[in-house]
Formats: sequence, C-alpha cells, structure tokens
Amino acid sequence: MEKLYVIKIGGNIIDDEQKLAASLKDFATVKGQKVLVHGGGKLATKMAAQLGIEQQMVDGRRITDAETLKIVTMVYAGLINKNIVAQLQANGCNAIGLTGADGNAIKAHKRSHATIDYGFVGDVDTVNTSLLQSLLAQQIAIVLAPITHDANGLLLNTNADTIAQETAKALSSIYDVELIYSFEKAGVLLDVNDDDSVVSTLTRAYYQELKEQQLIFAGMIPKLDNAFAAINSGVSKVIIGKAELLQQLINGESGTAIVH
Amino acid sequence: MEKLYVIKIGGNIIDDEQKLAASLKDFATVKGQKVLVHGGGKLATKMAAQLGIEQQMVDGRRITDAETLKIVTMVYAGLINKNIVAQLQANGCNAIGLTGADGNAIKAHKRSHATIDYGFVGDVDTVNTSLLQSLLAQQIAIVLAPITHDANGLLLNTNADTIAQETAKALSSIYDVELIYSFEKAGVLLDVNDDDSVVSTLTRAYYQELKEQQLIFAGMIPKLDNAFAAINSGVSKVIIGKAELLQQLINGESGTAIVH
Repeated sequence: MEKLYVIKIGGNIIDDEQKLAASLKDFATVKGQKVLVHGGGKLATKMAAQLGIEQQMVDGRRITDAETLKIVTMVYAGLINKNIVAQLQANGCNAIGLTGADGNAIKAHKRSHATIDYGFVGDVDTVNTSLLQSLLAQQIAIVLAPITHDANGLLLNTNADTIAQETAKALSSIYDVELIYSFEKAGVLLDVNDDDSVVSTLTRAYYQELKEQQLIFAGMIPKLDNAFAAINSGVSKVIIGKAELLQQLINGESGTAIVH
Repeated sequence: MEKLYVIKIGGNIIDDEQKLAASLKDFATVKGQKVLVHGGGKLATKMAAQLGIEQQMVDGRRITDAETLKIVTMVYAGLINKNIVAQLQANGCNAIGLTGADGNAIKAHKRSHATIDYGFVGDVDTVNTSLLQSLLAQQIAIVLAPITHDANGLLLNTNADTIAQETAKALSSIYDVELIYSFEKAGVLLDVNDDDSVVSTLTRAYYQELKEQQLIFAGMIPKLDNAFAAINSGVSKVIIGKAELLQQLINGESGTAIVH
C-alpha cells in the first residue's frame, strides 16, 4: 500500500502567521500523498466580535447559530483555507482546498442532542474516498476545512480533529495511513510542564498504566481515545507532537507515536 | 467533441436568495459537463461596511487593498461558493467549488497600471485545463469563485466575467463550449426598456450595424466585445440573457446568441 499522511494543524498555529508559514513549508516538503486538515483558530471568534455577533456558549461549548455558521464558512472555508492553498502553491506543492460539500467529500448530519441544541454542528457520516483518491493520484495535496454538509443544502461546522480522524480511517482502506496531530505540546508528556518528558511510543497497555497513575492530563484523554480508535480502524500509526517540528514528527524523531 | 456549458451567474442573482435557488435548480438539471462562475454581488460591500473598512474607489473602480482582499476571499470563496455547492448537492448535482489557487486552476498576475494601483487585482494568465477535465470527467460540476492566485502566495480578486471567458476559451481545445452570461436583462435589446425587443442572434456584422445606429447601450459594449473575442478563440457560441430563464437560454429559446 502507498503511504498517506493525514496531518492536522492546530488552531494555535493558524493564529500565528509565521508559525503557519513554517508549518506549510514543512508540509510542502513531505514526500508522497498527503492531506492537511486545519482548524479555525481564534479568527472566527474575532470576526464575530467585530461584527457584533454574540457567541452563545452552553456548558463551555460554542453554539453554531445561523450567523455563526456564516462566519465560520467565511473564515474557515474562505480566508484560512484559500490562504493555506495559495501558500502551498508558492512552496511548490500543488494543493486543493475542500469543504465536505465540495465533491461531496464529507457528508455529515446535524447533531441532535436530548437537551442541548448545538445548532449547525455536523457529525461525520461518510468520506468520499474515490474523490480524494482521484485528486491524490494527480499529486495534489488536499486541504480540508472543518466544514461539512448534510447533502440537503446545509453546511455544518465540524470539529477538525474529527475530520482528520474520519478521513484517515476512511482512506486506510486504500493507503497505509499515518495520522499526525500537530499542536502546541511536544507530545504525550509525563510532566505536563516539561517538553523533555515526552513519551516516544504509547501502546494501549502503557496508556492504561499512565491513566491509572494519573500521569495523563484530562485534556489529552479524548485526543488519545480518538487516536486509539483510529488505530483500531485501520490507521497504521498516530503521531502527536509539536507543530513547529512537523518534519521530525514525520521522520519519527519527535512526538509521541500511538501504536497497537 | 463533448459539449460543455460555462455559465456565469451575475451579482444581482447572488444577492437574491430565491432567484439564486431557482437558478441553481436550473443549473443542476443541465445535462452533461458544466462549469458555473459566480460573481460576488453586494455581500462583500455590505461586509466591508459592517467591519468599518472603507472602500476606496478610483475612477469608479473599487481598489482591492489588503483588508478588502480578505473580505472578498471570505465572501466569494467561502460564504457564496460553499453555499452554492451545498445547494447544488441538495439538487442532486455533484459539484466542487474552486478558486484559481485550488489545484492551480487559474493562475493570474497582479495588475500593473501606469497611474492607478488597483491593489490585489489579478489578470488571468493560464487555466489548468487538465485539472478541470479530470473533475468534469468524474461528472462533477465546477463552481468557480472570482479569486485567482499568482503562484507566489498571493490571492487576487478577479472579474467573474473574465474568469468565465478565459475558462471557456481554454476548455474549447477539449470541449464544444457554450458560454452563457446570465444577468438581469433578457439579452441584447433594441430598446433598452423593452425586454421584448431582444435580438435573438447577433453576428459580428449585425453588431457593427447596431453600434453604428447607436442601438447598443454603452454598458453592453465591453460585454459584447468579450463575447466576440471568445468566439474568435474557439468558443462555439455565447448566449446572453436573463438569469431566471437559464433553462431557456440553454435550449436556445431565450436570450441573444452571439455567433460568427
């Protein structure tokens, strides 16, 4: 099977022009087939504030009302996605930016919840692997914005980590997929304040052990549960680490590799 | 040669939710290969006003400064393009939304002018016909936003009529191309206030005659000059007519057909 990298670039990188430029330069040099998934960062929140649109929060989660959906569509699918694509082109990497609506790349459904109305938030149903494969086969890198559609005309705001995971899982039937989550930390840390305490390889057994010893901090648990779910669904390897070290994450010289 | 329709939907339709929905429903029913090019309408101007960004005009033309470029990228490539794609999907028409940066679909250069700095405005250099052909061959309609790139990292605001024309010309080496400009008028009119006075077929000789008789109003002249330029560059037919009558324009039952 051909190798494919699915690389998620976190919000804190999107917000920092220089870090983003460096990450995209690194991404451009990655050999072979690749997918980049970007989050939205703070730009959408900033834009909402500038436009005087109040952000509703329920239990610490943002509600995507109709006005907020317009803003995330503009910021994620327009401003961020197209600037990433243009920068990749400038770095000699042919790239195409897609939302889930484009070519029906990712179909989702509006989330329904017994008590909370999250608004226009989508949970992924299917990834159109034949479309993605046809683009990848033309040596085009795919840049996914965290917006999906329900095939009935609705665009839906969708978590970028989930998009990366679902895309990696779906494409693992065709490719040997490595899923890389780049973020602000150096990986899974034994001491949350010490980047040198990074765990280089995390098996499921070791993960259980670290959880029992309460050495994994709370915010990492859903990320790691998702990583193991991806591994169980056909993804070869998940790597978590610092966005600034993308090249090293790919080479296995940095970050935490989540394996069976 | 296989038939291909390149259809430009004008700004006044983009601004009217119901007219847009009707046009997209019609577009979805067009048989065979097709490209839709959309303008921006008044949404970008409205958004600039809401964000307190002053629009600079020089000789009646809007200058695309850095802040305006951000807005048109958000509105054209994000909000408008993705909503059009989602609506086409809902109408059973698989579609993909692209800017010129995506897959290097349309490369342009920043316009240079002896006395006026238009800002981030692009004049088209090349259309990537092999990318477009590979998508069209998968029965995917292409939806082009009026944003291009210079391959050095700059996105550029580009006239939608020009994008439609350049795309039609470039694809005429592969397809039998009909270029349709839909707008608010019923076509080329002998009496500007009477939709019934539409000229059904306009040859170059008849166009000269009408111009000499001053029966063609000023705003139509650049549009028609462009239409004849397209015909001279391999496009089979150019049709100009009312956006609400898209189906009839395609069937030759409405509008003005510009022919050799």
